[in-house]
Amino acid sequence: MDRLGIAVIGAGYWGPNLVRNLRSSDDWRLAYVCDLDLDRARRVVGGFGDVDVTDSVDELLADPTLDAVAIATPAGTHHGLALAALRAGKHVLVEKPLADSTDHGGAMIRSAEAAGLVLMADHTYCYTPAVQKIRELVEEGALGDLLFIDSVRINLGLIQSDVDVFWDLAPHDLSIMDFILPGGLTAEAVAAQGSDPLGAGRSCLGYLSIPLARGAMAHVHVNWLSPTKIRRMVIGGSRRTLVWDDLNPQQRVSVYDRGVDLAAASDDPSDRTAATISYRLGDTWSPALPEHEPLAAMVAEFASSIRAGRPARTDGRAALRVLRVLEAATRSLAAAGSLAPVERDELPSELEVVR
Amino acid sequence: MDRLGIAVIGAGYWGPNLVRNLRSSDDWRLAYVCDLDLDRARRVVGGFGDVDVTDSVDELLADPTLDAVAIATPAGTHHGLALAALRAGKHVLVEKPLADSTDHGGAMIRSAEAAGLVLMADHTYCYTPAVQKIRELVEEGALGDLLFIDSVRINLGLIQSDVDVFWDLAPHDLSIMDFILPGGLTAEAVAAQGSDPLGAGRSCLGYLSIPLARGAMAHVHVNWLSPTKIRRMVIGGSRRTLVWDDLNPQQRVSVYDRGVDLAAASDDPSDRTAATISYRLGDTWSPALPEHEPLAAMVAEFASSIRAGRPARTDGRAALRVLRVLEAATRSLAAAGSLAPVERDELPSELEVVR
Amino acid sequence: MDRLGIAVIGAGYWGPNLVRNLRSSDDWRLAYVCDLDLDRARRVVGGFGDVDVTDSVDELLADPTLDAVAIATPAGTHHGLALAALRAGKHVLVEKPLADSTDHGGAMIRSAEAAGLVLMADHTYCYTPAVQKIRELVEEGALGDLLFIDSVRINLGLIQSDVDVFWDLAPHDLSIMDFILPGGLTAEAVAAQGSDPLGAGRSCLGYLSIPLARGAMAHVHVNWLSPTKIRRMVIGGSRRTLVWDDLNPQQRVSVYDRGVDLAAASDDPSDRTAATISYRLGDTWSPALPEHEPLAAMVAEFASSIRAGRPARTDGRAALRVLRVLEAATRSLAAAGSLAPVERDELPSELEVVR
Amino acid sequence: MDRLGIAVIGAGYWGPNLVRNLRSSDDWRLAYVCDLDLDRARRVVGGFGDVDVTDSVDELLADPTLDAVAIATPAGTHHGLALAALRAGKHVLVEKPLADSTDHGGAMIRSAEAAGLVLMADHTYCYTPAVQKIRELVEEGALGDLLFIDSVRINLGLIQSDVDVFWDLAPHDLSIMDFILPGGLTAEAVAAQGSDPLGAGRSCLGYLSIPLARGAMAHVHVNWLSPTKIRRMVIGGSRRTLVWDDLNPQQRVSVYDRGVDLAAASDDPSDRTAATISYRLGDTWSPALPEHEPLAAMVAEFASSIRAGRPARTDGRAALRVLRVLEAATRSLAAAGSLAPVERDELPSELEVVR
Repeated sequence: MDRLGIAVIGAGYWGPNLVRNLRSSDDWRLAYVCDLDLDRARRVVGGFGDVDVTDSVDELLADPTLDAVAIATPAGTHHGLALAALRAGKHVLVEKPLADSTDHGGAMIRSAEAAGLVLMADHTYCYTPAVQKIRELVEEGALGDLLFIDSVRINLGLIQSDVDVFWDLAPHDLSIMDFILPGGLTAEAVAAQGSDPLGAGRSCLGYLSIPLARGAMAHVHVNWLSPTKIRRMVIGGSRRTLVWDDLNPQQRVSVYDRGVDLAAASDDPSDRTAATISYRLGDTWSPALPEHEPLAAMVAEFASSIRAGRPARTDGRAALRVLRVLEAATRSLAAAGSLAPVERDELPSELEVVR
Repeated sequence: MDRLGIAVIGAGYWGPNLVRNLRSSDDWRLAYVCDLDLDRARRVVGGFGDVDVTDSVDELLADPTLDAVAIATPAGTHHGLALAALRAGKHVLVEKPLADSTDHGGAMIRSAEAAGLVLMADHTYCYTPAVQKIRELVEEGALGDLLFIDSVRINLGLIQSDVDVFWDLAPHDLSIMDFILPGGLTAEAVAAQGSDPLGAGRSCLGYLSIPLARGAMAHVHVNWLSPTKIRRMVIGGSRRTLVWDDLNPQQRVSVYDRGVDLAAASDDPSDRTAATISYRLGDTWSPALPEHEPLAAMVAEFASSIRAGRPARTDGRAALRVLRVLEAATRSLAAAGSLAPVERDELPSELEVVR
Repeated sequence: MDRLGIAVIGAGYWGPNLVRNLRSSDDWRLAYVCDLDLDRARRVVGGFGDVDVTDSVDELLADPTLDAVAIATPAGTHHGLALAALRAGKHVLVEKPLADSTDHGGAMIRSAEAAGLVLMADHTYCYTPAVQKIRELVEEGALGDLLFIDSVRINLGLIQSDVDVFWDLAPHDLSIMDFILPGGLTAEAVAAQGSDPLGAGRSCLGYLSIPLARGAMAHVHVNWLSPTKIRRMVIGGSRRTLVWDDLNPQQRVSVYDRGVDLAAASDDPSDRTAATISYRLGDTWSPALPEHEPLAAMVAEFASSIRAGRPARTDGRAALRVLRVLEAATRSLAAAGSLAPVERDELPSELEVVR
Repeated sequence: MDRLGIAVIGAGYWGPNLVRNLRSSDDWRLAYVCDLDLDRARRVVGGFGDVDVTDSVDELLADPTLDAVAIATPAGTHHGLALAALRAGKHVLVEKPLADSTDHGGAMIRSAEAAGLVLMADHTYCYTPAVQKIRELVEEGALGDLLFIDSVRINLGLIQSDVDVFWDLAPHDLSIMDFILPGGLTAEAVAAQGSDPLGAGRSCLGYLSIPLARGAMAHVHVNWLSPTKIRRMVIGGSRRTLVWDDLNPQQRVSVYDRGVDLAAASDDPSDRTAATISYRLGDTWSPALPEHEPLAAMVAEFASSIRAGRPARTDGRAALRVLRVLEAATRSLAAAGSLAPVERDELPSELEVVR
C-alpha cells in the first residue's frame, strides 16, 4: 500500500511527538516539517534528508503529492490553517482543542464535509489501550446503564497565560467521555464552579457538573494546584462499575461487580419510596491491556479513515461536542455556576453531506 | 475530682459506643441507659449493676445527681429531648446532626446559652488525631492562606430511607471544615449538584461547591454508589498543601512543601496578567500521630467544657453552621444547582448571653 | 443441638478473644474462665453470672458436663495442661504454638489420638476468608503446579524476651502454608538467616528458605524492626500467581493470569537449554471475600470436628509440622545458615490409631 | 573547556542510551559508534554527519584525538576490549557487569591503574537522584548505624539464556549497596538460595543473605517469575529507617523516624537480656528529589574523573566488589546455600599505584 504524504505544521511542544510517530508508521511518508522558526523545525527533523523543512505553509499546500497536514500550532491559528489546507484538498488532523470557538470549529467541519475530506482531532487519550477497552466494555453492555462518571485530573500544573484550567485540562476528560458514551457526549447543560485563589486572572481549579440522561451525572475535577497527581475516572453502571487509574500501570482498569440494586417493592412503579435495596459484593476484574503507544494508533486511524473515506473515530464533530461543553462551562462560570445550556447542533446531519 | 453523672438516651447504633467510652472515662459516672426498648438497653449495659436501665426520660431528668445527658436518638427527636434536658438543668451532648432544621437547632442553642449550660455536638471526626493535627497546622500558619479544600467521601453505602446523601455523609466533611478553619465554616453560599440515577427518590451521589473568602473554594464529593472507598481531604494553602487520607493508616496526613507562587512582575499590582509564576517542589512531611480513640477525647472535652464553664470545641453554634450549609444545599438542589445563600446568623452573639 | 461445654484457661492477651467468640457462638456454652489471677478472669467474664471464674484447673477438669478446654497460656505450659485435660477426657484447643518443642507436641498428639479426642491448634489465620479462598483455589488447581511461595511479615514489633523473631512471627506464615498446600508443609530442610543488629540476644529479623518438591521454594521474611508494615504472600503457580496483601482491605487477594511458559523445543526432554520461553499477560481477578471473624469460624470448626469425630482442620499434626520447621530453623541458625533437615515423622499414621 | 572525544562500542540494547546522553552532554564529543553490524550502528547514529560509523575497533583506537571508549557489548567481551583500549591509552567506561569473572575484572583494574587511566563501571542506578540522596543521608549519619538492608527486585522478566537471575538482576542491588555503604560493600561471605521451578536450567528466583559488620545483614530477593513488579529497598538504621520505592514516583524515598531503642538496664554491658526496649514513633519525611536522567549524570562523572585524574565514583574496584559477591553466591548455590566466603582483595592498594 502506498504511503500517504503528510506535513507537520508546528514544531513546538506537540509537533515532535507527531513527527516521531508519523516516521515510524508504515502508513505515512513525512514530507515536511513547517515552523516559522526554521531552526526549531530542523532540530525536530534531525539529520534525515528525506524530510523538507520549511516556514511556508503555502509551499507545502501547493505540493500535489501531499495528502494531509497535521496542525500542532496554538489553538487560535487552527481555524485559518485548517481552512487553507482543506481548500487545498488536504485531509486535516488538528491538535486539541479543535478550535478556539464553536463557530470556528463548526466552519472547519462544514468545509471538510463539503469537500469530502477527513477532519480529525488528535484526542490522544482515546487511543490509549485503557480507553479503547473501556469503550468496548460500555458498548457490549458490561457496565449496564450509565449511573455516573466522576473524573479527576489534578496535578501541580503550568498556569497557562491564555486559557483557564477548564480549557487546558478538561478537553481530555470530555473527549474521553465523548468517545466512550454511545452517541457521544450529548450534554444539554453544564454547571461550572471555578476558583482563582492566587489571583492569576483565571480559574486555576474547578469542577464541571453535567447532567446526563435518566438522572445520571458526569463530573470533572481539574486542578493546577494539587501537590499530588491524580488521573482517575470512575464510571458507575447499573451492572458494574469501572475505575480507570491512569497512574497505576500495574492495574489501570478495574471492573467491580459491586453495586446497589433497587427493586420496586410494590406494584405501583411510581412508589419509589417502597423500593427494596440490595447490594452486590462481587469479584473485581482487571483486564490485561495491550501495550501500544496511543499516538501510533491515532496516526493509523487517521490514515485508515482517509483510505476508507469514512469519518475518523475522533472526528471534527466529536471535537465540536467537546468545544460546546467548554463554551457552556465558560458561560456558567460567568453566571455564578448556574446551569448553562449547551448549544444545540446546527450542522447539517452527516447524511446530507454530498461527498 | 468528682465524676460527673451522665445518662445515655438511645441504645441503638451509636449509643453503645458512647456507653463504652463513658464507662472507661475517669471524668464520667454513667448512671442511666435509656431506651424505649428496655431489652436493648439492658444488652448495652451488660451485667454491670451500677448502671440503671430505664425507658423513662422523665425519671432520669428528675435525678438531681445527674449532670448531663447524651442524646443518641433519631435526629427528629433531638430538639424535644434536648429542650427537656436543658429545662431540667442538664448539660447536653447530641449526636450529629444537631437537629433536623436550623430553626430547631437555633432554639436549642438559645435555650442552652440562656441557661448557661453546655450544648455540644458529637462531631466525632474532629476528635481524631488527624483532624486535631490539621487544626494545629492551620492555626500556626503552616499552610499559609487557604486556597482550596477538596473532600471526597465515597463508598458503597446504605441508601437511607429518610435523608439524601448530602445530609447523611456531608455533615462529616462540613463539621471537619468548620473545626479546622479559623472562625469556622462561615460560607455565604453553596451550590449543590445531586444525582439519583437509580430512582431512589433522593440524591445518591452529589457535589457541594462552597465559595470561600479571597477566591478560595471548598468542594465536597459524597457518593453511596462507589465500589471503592475513598476518604480523602486536600487542603491547599499558599505555603504548603496538606493531604489527609483517612484510609492509609501508615501515612494519614502528608504535608507537601510544593506549590505555585505568583509574584507581580510589574509595579502595578492590578496587572495580574504580567505576574510571574514559580514552582516550589519541596519535601513532603508526614507527622507522627498519637493513637487515641476519638470518642474518648470527645467525652473528655464534654466534661472539660462543663467544668470550665466554656463552650465545647464542637458546640451548638458549630453544629448550626453545618446545618445551615446543608439547608442551603437542599435549596440549591431545588434550584437546579444555582448558588443558594447560606442563612445569616440571627443568634445573639455569645458575649451578650447572661450566664 | 446441645451446646458443648468449654472452659478457657488463661485470661491474658488471647483469652478474652476466645471468650468473646465462644460466647457469641451457638455451638458452645462457656462454663469457666480460669486464671491464676482471679481478678483478671473476672474482668474478662464481665457481669455475666452464667460463667464460673476459677483459679483451679483441677476443678474444671473434674466437671463431667465439660466437653472441652481452650488453652491460652504461655507456650511452656501447653504440654502439661493439655495432657491433664486429655486424661480427663476433654477435647483440647491450644493457642499457637502448639508446644515449646516437637517432643512435647508429639506427646500431646499421641495422647489425644490414643484417647480418640480432638486436639486442635488455634491457627487463626487459616480461618480468615482470604486463606480459606486461597486453599480452595490451590485445591481446584487454579494456580497449577506450585513454583514458589514468598511471604513477608514485617512491622515495628515488640522484641520478645523469650523467643526470637522466627518463633514469634513465622508460625503464622508456616501454618498458612501448611493449610493451603495439599498434604501440608512437608519440608525436608530449611535454611535460616537471622540478624541481631541491636544486640538483643536473639534474631530480630530473619529469613527462612524452604526447598519444596520439584524445585519449588518457600521463603519467609520476618522482621521486628521495619518501620512500615507489610503482610504479603505471593504464591507462584505454573498457571496463575496469587498475591495476598492482608493490609489492603479493598483487594486482599489478586489472581494474576500472568506467567512464563517453558516449552521444550527439541524432542529430547532433558535438553532444557533449548527450551522456548513464552509469556502470558492475562487478566487479573480479585475474588469477593465474605466478611466473617476468623475466630468465630475457628471455634465452629472445633465444635464441628468434635461432633463428627474427625480431626480438626488445623489439628495437632498440622501444628507439629510447623514446630518441626521452627526447630530445624533454630538448628540452621546455629550452623551459620546451612540447610538443616526437618525431623521426620515418627508418629503412627492416623489410620493405626484405635479410637 | 574542550570536549573529550569518545567512541561507543556496541549498538545493541544499551548503546543507544549512551549515544543519546553523550550527544547531549557538553563534556563529550561523540566521535564513533562501532558495531560489527554496520547498519545497526548507522541507525543509532541517525542522520548526524559528525559521527563516524565503523566496525573496526582498531580504527578508532588508533585515533589519537580519541580520549575514551564506552563498551556496551556482551559481558564476555569486556575484558578483551577494555585491555586493548587501555593499552591504546584510552579511558574506559564499561557496562555492568564489569567482566564475566573476578579474574578478568582484576586484570582490567591493574591495567588501568598501571597506566593511570580511568576505568569506570556504568552502575546506572548509582546516578539516580534517589540513590544519590540515600548516599548523602547515610554519609551524614542521618540513619545512624546500619542495622539491615532488604532489597526486593521482582518482575515478570526475560529468562536469560546465559546467566541466572542473580547475575542478571542482583548487580543492581549490589552496586547500589556498594555505593551507599561507607567503604563499599565489603562482605565477607554470602549465602544464596536459588530455585528453578520451571526447569529452565538456572535459578529463576533467589535470595542472597550477606552478613555485615556488627550483626547487620543485607538481603536481596530477585525473581523473574513475579506477576507484580516491586523495586524496593529498606535500609534500617539505629536512628532512622529509609525506604526507597522506585516505582512510586510521587514518594520514592521516605525516611522514618521510627525504630526500636535498646538500652542496657544494668552496668554490665554483657547482660543483654536485662536490656530495656523503647520505641520511637516519629515523623516521616520524604525529601524532594531533583529530576535528572541518571545516564547524563553518569557520563558527566566519567568526564569529571578523567579531568581530575581521580577514580570515578563507580570505578573498577567498586565493580570488582560486586563481581566477588556474585561469584561467592554462585559457590554458595553449589553448596546448598551454605555461607560462601567472598574472595579477599589481592589488588595493590590504590596508594601504591604509580601514576
